[in-house]
Amino acid sequence: MANTIGKIFTLTTFGESHGPALGGVIDGCPAGIEIDFDQIQLELNRRKPGQSKIVTQRKEPDEVEFLSGIFEGKTTGTSIGFIIRNANQKSKDYNHIKDVYRPSHADFTYDKKYGHRDYRGGGRTSARETVNWVVAGAIAKQVIKSIDINAYTSSVGDLFLEKPYQDLDFSQTENNIVRCPDAAIATQMIAKIDAVRKDGDTIGGTVTCVLKNVPLGLGEPVFDKLHAQLGKAMLSINAVKGFEYGSGFCGAKMKGSEHNDIFNADGSTQTNLSGGIQGGISNGMDIYFRVAFKPVATIMKEQETINSKGELVKMMGKGRHDPCVVPRAVPIVEALSAMVLLDCMLIHNGAKASF
Amino acid sequence: MANTIGKIFTLTTFGESHGPALGGVIDGCPAGIEIDFDQIQLELNRRKPGQSKIVTQRKEPDEVEFLSGIFEGKTTGTSIGFIIRNANQKSKDYNHIKDVYRPSHADFTYDKKYGHRDYRGGGRTSARETVNWVVAGAIAKQVIKSIDINAYTSSVGDLFLEKPYQDLDFSQTENNIVRCPDAAIATQMIAKIDAVRKDGDTIGGTVTCVLKNVPLGLGEPVFDKLHAQLGKAMLSINAVKGFEYGSGFCGAKMKGSEHNDIFNADGSTQTNLSGGIQGGISNGMDIYFRVAFKPVATIMKEQETINSKGELVKMMGKGRHDPCVVPRAVPIVEALSAMVLLDCMLIHNGAKASF
Amino acid sequence: MANTIGKIFTLTTFGESHGPALGGVIDGCPAGIEIDFDQIQLELNRRKPGQSKIVTQRKEPDEVEFLSGIFEGKTTGTSIGFIIRNANQKSKDYNHIKDVYRPSHADFTYDKKYGHRDYRGGGRTSARETVNWVVAGAIAKQVIKSIDINAYTSSVGDLFLEKPYQDLDFSQTENNIVRCPDAAIATQMIAKIDAVRKDGDTIGGTVTCVLKNVPLGLGEPVFDKLHAQLGKAMLSINAVKGFEYGSGFCGAKMKGSEHNDIFNADGSTQTNLSGGIQGGISNGMDIYFRVAFKPVATIMKEQETINSKGELVKMMGKGRHDPCVVPRAVPIVEALSAMVLLDCMLIHNGAKASF
Amino acid sequence: MANTIGKIFTLTTFGESHGPALGGVIDGCPAGIEIDFDQIQLELNRRKPGQSKIVTQRKEPDEVEFLSGIFEGKTTGTSIGFIIRNANQKSKDYNHIKDVYRPSHADFTYDKKYGHRDYRGGGRTSARETVNWVVAGAIAKQVIKSIDINAYTSSVGDLFLEKPYQDLDFSQTENNIVRCPDAAIATQMIAKIDAVRKDGDTIGGTVTCVLKNVPLGLGEPVFDKLHAQLGKAMLSINAVKGFEYGSGFCGAKMKGSEHNDIFNADGSTQTNLSGGIQGGISNGMDIYFRVAFKPVATIMKEQETINSKGELVKMMGKGRHDPCVVPRAVPIVEALSAMVLLDCMLIHNGAKASF
Repeated sequence: MANTIGKIFTLTTFGESHGPALGGVIDGCPAGIEIDFDQIQLELNRRKPGQSKIVTQRKEPDEVEFLSGIFEGKTTGTSIGFIIRNANQKSKDYNHIKDVYRPSHADFTYDKKYGHRDYRGGGRTSARETVNWVVAGAIAKQVIKSIDINAYTSSVGDLFLEKPYQDLDFSQTENNIVRCPDAAIATQMIAKIDAVRKDGDTIGGTVTCVLKNVPLGLGEPVFDKLHAQLGKAMLSINAVKGFEYGSGFCGAKMKGSEHNDIFNADGSTQTNLSGGIQGGISNGMDIYFRVAFKPVATIMKEQETINSKGELVKMMGKGRHDPCVVPRAVPIVEALSAMVLLDCMLIHNGAKASF
Repeated sequence: MANTIGKIFTLTTFGESHGPALGGVIDGCPAGIEIDFDQIQLELNRRKPGQSKIVTQRKEPDEVEFLSGIFEGKTTGTSIGFIIRNANQKSKDYNHIKDVYRPSHADFTYDKKYGHRDYRGGGRTSARETVNWVVAGAIAKQVIKSIDINAYTSSVGDLFLEKPYQDLDFSQTENNIVRCPDAAIATQMIAKIDAVRKDGDTIGGTVTCVLKNVPLGLGEPVFDKLHAQLGKAMLSINAVKGFEYGSGFCGAKMKGSEHNDIFNADGSTQTNLSGGIQGGISNGMDIYFRVAFKPVATIMKEQETINSKGELVKMMGKGRHDPCVVPRAVPIVEALSAMVLLDCMLIHNGAKASF
Repeated sequence: MANTIGKIFTLTTFGESHGPALGGVIDGCPAGIEIDFDQIQLELNRRKPGQSKIVTQRKEPDEVEFLSGIFEGKTTGTSIGFIIRNANQKSKDYNHIKDVYRPSHADFTYDKKYGHRDYRGGGRTSARETVNWVVAGAIAKQVIKSIDINAYTSSVGDLFLEKPYQDLDFSQTENNIVRCPDAAIATQMIAKIDAVRKDGDTIGGTVTCVLKNVPLGLGEPVFDKLHAQLGKAMLSINAVKGFEYGSGFCGAKMKGSEHNDIFNADGSTQTNLSGGIQGGISNGMDIYFRVAFKPVATIMKEQETINSKGELVKMMGKGRHDPCVVPRAVPIVEALSAMVLLDCMLIHNGAKASF
Repeated sequence: MANTIGKIFTLTTFGESHGPALGGVIDGCPAGIEIDFDQIQLELNRRKPGQSKIVTQRKEPDEVEFLSGIFEGKTTGTSIGFIIRNANQKSKDYNHIKDVYRPSHADFTYDKKYGHRDYRGGGRTSARETVNWVVAGAIAKQVIKSIDINAYTSSVGDLFLEKPYQDLDFSQTENNIVRCPDAAIATQMIAKIDAVRKDGDTIGGTVTCVLKNVPLGLGEPVFDKLHAQLGKAMLSINAVKGFEYGSGFCGAKMKGSEHNDIFNADGSTQTNLSGGIQGGISNGMDIYFRVAFKPVATIMKEQETINSKGELVKMMGKGRHDPCVVPRAVPIVEALSAMVLLDCMLIHNGAKASF
């Protein structure tokens, strides 16, 4: 089940960048949830290519067609099938990579693993897959409406939004094209990405995500810890190289006397270096984590590489690519968060029922 | 299946710190593997409490009893049950936490989630659970003997082993009690942990792990990417706050032109910022990753906290605790790595067979 | 994952009888398999409504559109998405059951479980779902070509094909519309179904399936026994009330001295009451099993029933229904068999590889 | 996960007949359930060898030791590990089968699949494994106390208890050693088994199970239908050859007008040929099903067979075996039923919670 995420609320996906369509099956969604289709489209638009000058200029309508599981506007509890047709395929842009392995792309590993692959646009390795996740995440969000999920761009290259998340106004995140809730830093980030783009290069960055009003008790002990599930989900996103929650890698430099979160009488804590999770289980405080994205591998510069015969060749990036994936990754991080939380809630609720 | 890791090669575990025993069931182990029991005990000894002055002074024999699945010294392909009896329980050390929630421990979340818990020694939340993982990992290592798995302590607090792993001699890792392959840094790390311990405090750190000779093609696309599986496994270890592989969080600061790994004619790459994985699938280069551990929450200092009635109380750490978990985490990181790799190999091998 | 079958080779499905489409995601299919699309359509035609006078007269083209996972005619090893558009929906045929629970249908249980359902044509409870299984089964068959899978109608009502399967010529199965390989009995069966149909009634029956050339060693001990997996798959088909393999319920009347299969020197057995499986694992002999189908619940006679308000009402079957599902169930039984066998092979092959 | 049953409430087992112990891990049991250990032992006693003259005369204490997950007499919500030590191993009884494949046993298939096996007492293929299931089932029963689970012997050879279950007094089941609630038939069954035993032979039989007070709505559509889950569980029991529920194979002979269950105004039905399940989901009526057991393969008569070299040899059954498994299978059928029902309840409850 390499194309499935979740245990009870699950998403199983398919689709290649230049095939007829992407899509998936959402299973385990509770019945009777009213679906706001406009809201789903809004989420898709946040991920959509061509939305601004600092993302890929491909044009894809990214319209989802639901095929089952929703009747008269409400979920029925049965599986929800959906597809998103690919519209703007310029497959000839990819003829040059038919037999050439792009550096730091998955062309080589897919070819070696499977022996036969759809090379066009990266095929199954394309981040176009994440359109499916945004659909499922948008539905999950509508089930767990009381939880606030806010992701944002927290760094681009070496330019960091240093403010703690508590000092940010998340209502500002969508007010700029880089999705950084601090307008001043956002301007710098946009300039940086734009400069990199003009140079035919790309740049990495990080996304931070904050989950508020998560009920106490989500996550399971040992191997299904809430942060392990979140981590696995985030590490599934194309280009992700790292995940940390709460104090993260900084916490590894600290002493226990500095790191411990002292309780208030109501069970909340004075600090929250734990990141809202103790022993793998949500403690009612904000959950926050950070995801590292490497720079996009396709650059508009000549690079040396090899072809499938093992010959050294020169290649030049073609097509329309993101100079920085981070702005479009923000809704993806949110979508996966929503799916993980809902899945954990379904399991937790089941065990809490009286028998 | 919150207590299970893996899909084909699986480990399902049980056990509390102060219960009669820990143990587990290893399922999906191939048949006919000769088991070196001494080697398993050696791995257990690497994780064992009381092995040096910089770890907890608890004494546990940590002897594993195998109950099934191994016959005449070889695996039979059926499930391998095992137990490790708890020997050195000083449960009265924990009476003081029966109704008190220790700061940054899971006492509070378990109590809220389950309403009833074994508080002694942290019960199921204790890192004593990882003894089970070392057993299963030791068996997995014996199945995939051709793969080299080397973890080591790469930082303690703000003291970092800066050398790249390529410059290290992993045969030195076990030559010092902190498990850092650089003797000079190891001495400093030991001194740092010792100082922290004497102060009744604790300190965090990181473990780096390097996997050599991993066959090309392990890992699955989309949601079962090899690094996502490794990440989830590592995030399951007590006290872990972050995971990064290859260039990790540093990669998020870089440009594509700096980050891309240029191929050699044989399919290897000149650099390896990718960390041996492309598109979730091993590319034959070394896999390496880094795991961040927070400082142990139990400190020998008075802290304010609350009890189960929501009253503010003072508490003082008791019992025998690690001032730094990192030295004992090294074999745990290796064990989980071995389990993940074997699981991926079984799935990959199945699909590669001819039909 | 209520809509998923399999562990490595998996099918996850969606779709309602009168929704826009049915479809699914096939995951874990090995790469490099050449797909014969005509063969898939032939299998779909065997299941198709309207194919003869003894099945439902609905007209559905049942054309599958593959959306991913197949490139240049060969599988790529990635997930295969597909849809089958619903064409011949006469939803108004079902207005009369919007608030009425048809006897021995799932209207009542779905309404009570979910509170909101697509009642048209039975929605998700419709056997139209099995069109998805035939697609996935047709692909599985193309992977395991060396295995012969032959199902056939073995009884209709109290009319039984008494001959043992060894005396049948499976090449005759498709030569009559009831799919019974004995022409004489087939004629009687057809007459029986036709009479029942004219009377506005329906009738049950059984399908027998024979699997030849199954490799030794498929199936797993304890909970994934090969026959348990086959049984679960068959019990998933709409209207199935029973499953038996080998000697089945007759075996329960026998003595050990009668029932034991004595070995030949080559490991084959003189008799095969075991049905090709010992201890849950295939032994190389023919596997055979029998599946019982109840009569279709929708009859063209007035019945008393209740509506959603708990009022007693009269209702009369409408629409176009099968007088007997068995002829159309034959390809469905084969499809599920192929999926189960391939899934077991992938797991078995993985463990048999050398390490 | 060949040794695991269940999705949320799971049991993962290990153990060979003549190894040191059997045991397992129960995961997903809700917290706070008071455990009646005497009741567990009573269930084990019902399955125990040596309990009467018509079962195997092996003596096993069959005492379970719980190792985790239960604290101060109540479940904690964490995994419950347990072991049952093997006490009465007469391994030398099995030297004669070290290289000989017993007819209609799994010796041959295990040897071919795995190449290395514990032959003593059948090793992992022994029905001794079911002791684990009785432990887990006994715990599941204590969680779902409001459901009545009653299995009984419904046939031995060609001797059938013809009365419908509605006419039986289940309180009589344990009053005779064959576990048939009709005293007169029980006497005949006992005589039949005794006669077969004296002849060195064995005999098959069936177990019927009735589940009363099952809440409406358990089971999932499509591939996790309640009866499919029950069927798979029952087909996992050693020697089972068939499963039917409700009208079963008889239903396949009937017409729709005879078979349909007409509703009462309250949603109950006048008849219950459906067997309490519609569309895979419980409808609140009694669930009942029947399980067919073949005769035990080990007989005390000389049989021809082969050894691992493919030579024809004569062999004679040795050791202490059941002449008929059915009396001891009754508690096993109940145990699996309880596990399946609880697992379905946990999933159903999770989705029914408000969000």
